[in-house]
Amino acid sequence: MNIILASTSTLFGGAYLEYLKEELINLYHGIDEIIFIPFARPGGISHDDYTEKARSFFETINIKVKGLHEFDNKTEAINEAEGYFTGGGNTFLLVKNLHEENLMKILKQNIESGKPYLGCSAGSNIGGQTMKTTNDMPIVYPPSFDCMGLVPFNINPHYLDPNPELRHNGETRETRIKEFLTQNDMKVVGLREGNWIRRINDTITVEGNELTRIFEKDKEPYEIESGSQL
Amino acid sequence: MNIILASTSTLFGGAYLEYLKEELINLYHGIDEIIFIPFARPGGISHDDYTEKARSFFETINIKVKGLHEFDNKTEAINEAEGYFTGGGNTFLLVKNLHEENLMKILKQNIESGKPYLGCSAGSNIGGQTMKTTNDMPIVYPPSFDCMGLVPFNINPHYLDPNPELRHNGETRETRIKEFLTQNDMKVVGLREGNWIRRINDTITVEGNELTRIFEKDKEPYEIESGSQL
Repeated sequence: MNIILASTSTLFGGAYLEYLKEELINLYHGIDEIIFIPFARPGGISHDDYTEKARSFFETINIKVKGLHEFDNKTEAINEAEGYFTGGGNTFLLVKNLHEENLMKILKQNIESGKPYLGCSAGSNIGGQTMKTTNDMPIVYPPSFDCMGLVPFNINPHYLDPNPELRHNGETRETRIKEFLTQNDMKVVGLREGNWIRRINDTITVEGNELTRIFEKDKEPYEIESGSQL
Repeated sequence: MNIILASTSTLFGGAYLEYLKEELINLYHGIDEIIFIPFARPGGISHDDYTEKARSFFETINIKVKGLHEFDNKTEAINEAEGYFTGGGNTFLLVKNLHEENLMKILKQNIESGKPYLGCSAGSNIGGQTMKTTNDMPIVYPPSFDCMGLVPFNINPHYLDPNPELRHNGETRETRIKEFLTQNDMKVVGLREGNWIRRINDTITVEGNELTRIFEKDKEPYEIESGSQL
């Protein structure tokens, strides 16, 4: 496999995908066209507008972009594509769309055959085992929470440390992930913004400038450094 | 109906349910025992320990508490109870438990017949039309997102304004609710901590010290004052 699962598409104050540019040139080496999966629709943006946003970035590295929503036969489109990018937004919307059109498995099979995949935020969640560690609001009801399982754990994108100054009793991110572990025996990778997971064949590492927080059942959470294997 | 749907059980720096004490004496007037529904299990606490926490508070206003998990026949327990309290925690866990044991409708029917109900946080979410505006992590897969619909709208508990100082690209609460409105034509009440919804017969008002933010499809969000009808 040859994949990147990133916490976010955009660093604070940065431009779309800019911080990942060198990585993406490497990821998509030898490929001149990819399919963009716009179904997560951040902020309710249209599939066309979202695809245009991806296209604008990928033009700068000479890769053409087609939106998956443009194809009548989406299964065929996925099977014939050379590589993929799934943008962020709402994971429930994304997963509902992929399952209802029976595309989750098709996409998984193609990526497992070696075609490059980039996911950001919701697009990274679907690379995990399930979407049960998304931060998103359940605005629609998907037929299942199962995802592609491109890595043997779950991902929490945009991982955020507790803010001791917040006078608010909503749950912290850590509390939420610990609640997940009371119901599921599965490793969770808390991926801070600026970090990403890189899988090349069977080697899975975490990359980027920040430490990464790992949660496992019946263990205290712990931090690993960039470059560590997962 | 005679219900309170509160944003939170506990104000920052306060004791459990303390800020609602006078309201609860009024809500449960004439009643000396209620059923506590502990299924949301905040932080993975046991049903027994969570019920004990509720019991400690209700002792101070001379109301006995039985945990719903203590009954073999939960339908009968709900039908025979005089009043209810559903505590906060994880809404997905709560809704999964209630649907799988066919208790959502039974509880709804009893509350609609006039028995008093208090919900906090997740317990308030289930008073709305659906749980699609919860903030919680989808740690388990419920058979449906439908809730009791004790009020003709959805609730977002612990409503939190955007923090302009946060250098983080995760979605704000407002962004999430606006995404909900792209997929659902339903009013959402953004209930800040310290506020609650009060329904007495057919009159529904919002109460507490804060303004309340209302979201409707194709409208700019707006604020209403405490005491306003919903």
